Amino acid sequence: MRAPLDFYFAFGSPPGYFASTQIDAIAAKHGRGVRWRPFDIRALFAEEGLQPTVAYPTKGRYHQHDWHRTARLHNIAFAGLPQNAESPSKRGALLFYWLADTLGEDAAKAFAQLAMHAYFVEQRPAGEPEEMAAIAAALGADSDAAREALDETHWQARLADETAAAAAAGVWGSPHVFVDGEPFWGHDRLEQVDLWLERGGW
Amino acid sequence: MRAPLDFYFAFGSPPGYFASTQIDAIAAKHGRGVRWRPFDIRALFAEEGLQPTVAYPTKGRYHQHDWHRTARLHNIAFAGLPQNAESPSKRGALLFYWLADTLGEDAAKAFAQLAMHAYFVEQRPAGEPEEMAAIAAALGADSDAAREALDETHWQARLADETAAAAAAGVWGSPHVFVDGEPFWGHDRLEQVDLWLERGGW
Repeated sequence: MRAPLDFYFAFGSPPGYFASTQIDAIAAKHGRGVRWRPFDIRALFAEEGLQPTVAYPTKGRYHQHDWHRTARLHNIAFAGLPQNAESPSKRGALLFYWLADTLGEDAAKAFAQLAMHAYFVEQRPAGEPEEMAAIAAALGADSDAAREALDETHWQARLADETAAAAAAGVWGSPHVFVDGEPFWGHDRLEQVDLWLERGGW
Repeated sequence: MRAPLDFYFAFGSPPGYFASTQIDAIAAKHGRGVRWRPFDIRALFAEEGLQPTVAYPTKGRYHQHDWHRTARLHNIAFAGLPQNAESPSKRGALLFYWLADTLGEDAAKAFAQLAMHAYFVEQRPAGEPEEMAAIAAALGADSDAAREALDETHWQARLADETAAAAAAGVWGSPHVFVDGEPFWGHDRLEQVDLWLERGGW
């Protein structure tokens, strides 16, 4: 089996969530695995001089509309970006790496899927510490240990390192997919990812 | 024949140029025409708090790469965004409306196609007044009159009005396509435009 794809995403990003429901299947068609690499998107936006999409008045309104339309087209469950809820991007990414180290990559991936489903489909405040810990606990983690990891310097430093590594790879938004070093940004580019895997580039 | 699509674009936008090479054929498949509506993209970026794509360091570098890859995939002639050349977005849009009123919409559309080809394929400084006037002259316009129109308050006000109308319609970037009021942003969304025309929405 050839090298896995790198999938960089933020838990609170609708296009990142959309891509998370499709990327493993696209890779598998071509005999590839996927390394999921969540990151702290606010830190990269700040470095780049970008705002969260919904902070732009006209562009933000458009994307709220486009996300629903795109989810319907692809049959992706999506009730919308929760209003007035804290984004799960930072705590989700931190607990992802904590889970990957304590229970393994599969548990971490399942955690990301559950957390994004809770946020984007059930509209639960998945970014809050108690919700995050409860989702980790549903996967067999110790709820108190998960809650404590969120405040630990060690795991905050780990998240900062992973985010710096994403930035160094050329990531600034969610999602980014890398196929043998070739970068693709946006859920819209999964079709090119599929073609790139099929043709080996063009 | 049903209502034409509205195609908003900036002359200096690579995705707008890419879409300009495909939108008429997509619309024609479904028995539709297209109203081309160039606008002053810097004015809308300023209102929205956005920078030109290439002004973002990491995002800008990515898009320069993505534009070449996307042009190759779709067999669109593209030598790149000219370096250190003045953007043709503002003067191109102004002369477009001048030509539309003096020689008709077809001449204005042909002018846009020639100007974008000069800029993105031939890498000529198409945004400069003399280049703009020469391209208009190639379509039968009076070169001196074209050159003068660029400085006339009347045509500057017309461009401001067209740009304000684009903003009021929900445009902030290039390209935007509207199908019976449904908005689609980005060259990447032409596939959804095609599907929307085929299905009448979803």
